[in-house]
Amino acid sequence: MEMPDAVVVGAGYAGLCAARRLRTAGLDVLVLEASDRVGGRTLTARLPGGWALDLGGQWIAPAHTRFAALARAYDAKTFTGHTQGDNVLVSQTSHRRFSGRLPPLPPHATAVLALALWKLDRLTTRTLTTAQAERLDSTTVATWLRRRLPVPQAHRLAEAILGAELSVDVASVSMLALITAIRGTGGVRAGTEAETTASLFVDGADGPARSIAAELGDAVRLDTPVTSIHDTGDDVHIAGVRAARAIVALPPPLAGRIHYTPALPAARDQLTQRTPMGAALKTCAVYDTPFWRGDGLSGLALDLDGPMTLDASRPGGPGLLCTLANGPAARRLTRLDPAERKATIVRSLVRGHGPRAAHPVDWHEKNWSDDPYCRGGYNAYFPPGVLTTVGPALRTPVGRVHWAGSETATEWAGYIEGAIRSGERAADEVLQAETRFRDRLVVPD
Amino acid sequence: MEMPDAVVVGAGYAGLCAARRLRTAGLDVLVLEASDRVGGRTLTARLPGGWALDLGGQWIAPAHTRFAALARAYDAKTFTGHTQGDNVLVSQTSHRRFSGRLPPLPPHATAVLALALWKLDRLTTRTLTTAQAERLDSTTVATWLRRRLPVPQAHRLAEAILGAELSVDVASVSMLALITAIRGTGGVRAGTEAETTASLFVDGADGPARSIAAELGDAVRLDTPVTSIHDTGDDVHIAGVRAARAIVALPPPLAGRIHYTPALPAARDQLTQRTPMGAALKTCAVYDTPFWRGDGLSGLALDLDGPMTLDASRPGGPGLLCTLANGPAARRLTRLDPAERKATIVRSLVRGHGPRAAHPVDWHEKNWSDDPYCRGGYNAYFPPGVLTTVGPALRTPVGRVHWAGSETATEWAGYIEGAIRSGERAADEVLQAETRFRDRLVVPD
Repeated sequence: MEMPDAVVVGAGYAGLCAARRLRTAGLDVLVLEASDRVGGRTLTARLPGGWALDLGGQWIAPAHTRFAALARAYDAKTFTGHTQGDNVLVSQTSHRRFSGRLPPLPPHATAVLALALWKLDRLTTRTLTTAQAERLDSTTVATWLRRRLPVPQAHRLAEAILGAELSVDVASVSMLALITAIRGTGGVRAGTEAETTASLFVDGADGPARSIAAELGDAVRLDTPVTSIHDTGDDVHIAGVRAARAIVALPPPLAGRIHYTPALPAARDQLTQRTPMGAALKTCAVYDTPFWRGDGLSGLALDLDGPMTLDASRPGGPGLLCTLANGPAARRLTRLDPAERKATIVRSLVRGHGPRAAHPVDWHEKNWSDDPYCRGGYNAYFPPGVLTTVGPALRTPVGRVHWAGSETATEWAGYIEGAIRSGERAADEVLQAETRFRDRLVVPD
Repeated sequence: MEMPDAVVVGAGYAGLCAARRLRTAGLDVLVLEASDRVGGRTLTARLPGGWALDLGGQWIAPAHTRFAALARAYDAKTFTGHTQGDNVLVSQTSHRRFSGRLPPLPPHATAVLALALWKLDRLTTRTLTTAQAERLDSTTVATWLRRRLPVPQAHRLAEAILGAELSVDVASVSMLALITAIRGTGGVRAGTEAETTASLFVDGADGPARSIAAELGDAVRLDTPVTSIHDTGDDVHIAGVRAARAIVALPPPLAGRIHYTPALPAARDQLTQRTPMGAALKTCAVYDTPFWRGDGLSGLALDLDGPMTLDASRPGGPGLLCTLANGPAARRLTRLDPAERKATIVRSLVRGHGPRAAHPVDWHEKNWSDDPYCRGGYNAYFPPGVLTTVGPALRTPVGRVHWAGSETATEWAGYIEGAIRSGERAADEVLQAETRFRDRLVVPD
């Protein structure tokens, strides 16, 4: 029987960064990955000529310091997304150009939206009493928006933006969870700024993950789904391997599908039952050139009747329009057959960028809900009543089993940055937990 | 390799009744049960002298026609619960007797409560538009109650009653789900009437389940957890067995922990992620006699600072006070060590029934969240945003796999009656689905 010091379940950023830190500390570590690739919820496709396009998480913001350190360590080049030109707000019957972050709204709607944002900002910056937290956790984001945004245009826009952010309809998510997520990005302003100043990776956002995996070599085992974890009290048995400690670096609902002996404490088990994945469909239409730039367009289109579109073209490369559909929109599109789905999305691209968008030369798509080892995207979310009851079980180790994954991060949860930080935190827990590892704490790069 | 006609996963009432109907139709059927007993979320403990007490589901109401048919078929005796005498409403500082269904409230609170009930009744009886359904599904029961019941006493009481009904805090549940549940009982009035006219089983509510299992004999296999189901398109492979069809008769979150090949459609998988179990702790304090009856008490106590208590004594048997704690109350109590938990609950029993309640001669308890093959109780619930999105996946068969379990019932979902009906419905699906079974449809007893 193999006996590494630690086993990591999952080779997304969280798992790989946990393994990397443990390896740096001199531990013998093994990473078990169910699928045939590393990178988790990042995924790069290749075009002829080697150009990369991202079908999963793709952004890095200036505040993403740990991700930046990895990018430096593995020499992964980034570029600032193309933002020059006008954005567009379209629907099946309308088309309006706008500049700046927010689309044009009637003055009243703008005022109401600003007020709601101010209230949201106040909620994210002040210390909440237990009663306030419980009340916010008993309210859906939909209810909060209905009350704070009685103006339809402002309401619809806020629903679309927040739904995209959470990868799930605002009806499903706790208001406290939204506030917690915003806090994890440094507040409303910092969070929004991070989005507008984000960069992409020339060679795809899973580049550093692939580099870590290459460095770990044989220690990363693909096509190895973990179905059970047995904690004997003295060590952990997983997939024929014995180790002192295990780190499960999966989204909570997938971590919950592993069979644990002894059975997990009720709070941890119920947490995994109560934090489902959002739904996300990402597509990328490829054109010979980013033709929309010639029309003075940025490539950003908000479609009130379709997905959101962004310019993801690499400098000097073909034109890439990537579309993001989340929650109910993702479900509606993924129920269509592939040709009908493509036609529906292309119609939205034409609404936003004109008739030249009608004939992409190539087409890529990823329905994260169909991925057998993600079963949703981009993250697990918190329905009402979860954070204030079983929330603490998110990070609390159970015996010799530790938990990582972007959802467990205290900062940038739901981002690649959160995944990295969570993996490093879990690795530190393992190093602290065993006397023989304790002198090996690693100074981060 | 064994080749029965059908395999049923789970030997609760749903699974057993599915198997019973298939057996009656002449099919060769096999039931695989993970635990060492049948009955699912019903569970009977035995006292010296053979007296039964229920630690899980226990009631049968006059409208529970399928459960009544089973009781008749297997000669399971029922008795009407003791309801004579006063009920009590207590807290750490107060004690008030009352008669009738609702505890004494100030006139204003009573009026507000009546109005809210009337509104609730209207919602359950009228046909909802899609927009209305979506709005109700985007609202928690907590939000609805806050708006409709601004009077604290009425609010607190409604929260306690509905939280007990749903086995989860009202903050977590969709308003549409509550309405759907009430509809499944025939409306507010019929549902309440069913509760006040319910009977118990002298020998425990799992009696008929044990009788069905005895009748099925070797076809019920205990200690056989199912971890994977493979649908080849021609047949289903489960735990070394091949069958034409499978019925998974588990609560959705546990059904979701089985590994399916091919992978389940996204909607079904997301449904299992998004319907977690409630939390339920049931205890039973045993006394030499039901002494409270001599004091003119019914045994029903609503404790605003503790669990709800009911008289579960069998005619001529010892005194049984069973307590029900759900949701956050269950979690608070189950975090205590056993002695402290018992002391806390006994203090509530004393508040309700006087100092003679302080010394039970025996003590039984069941924390359903700790049960490795239930992981919560009494039912899975619907958080906001689930029913209107992935709700239809609850009952829709996937290939050769059919779904049963009380949660899937269209009437009396969440009750034993619903479990029975769901199993019989799934069996009918199997009989209809295969040409060679189709002439064997069973006329129910």
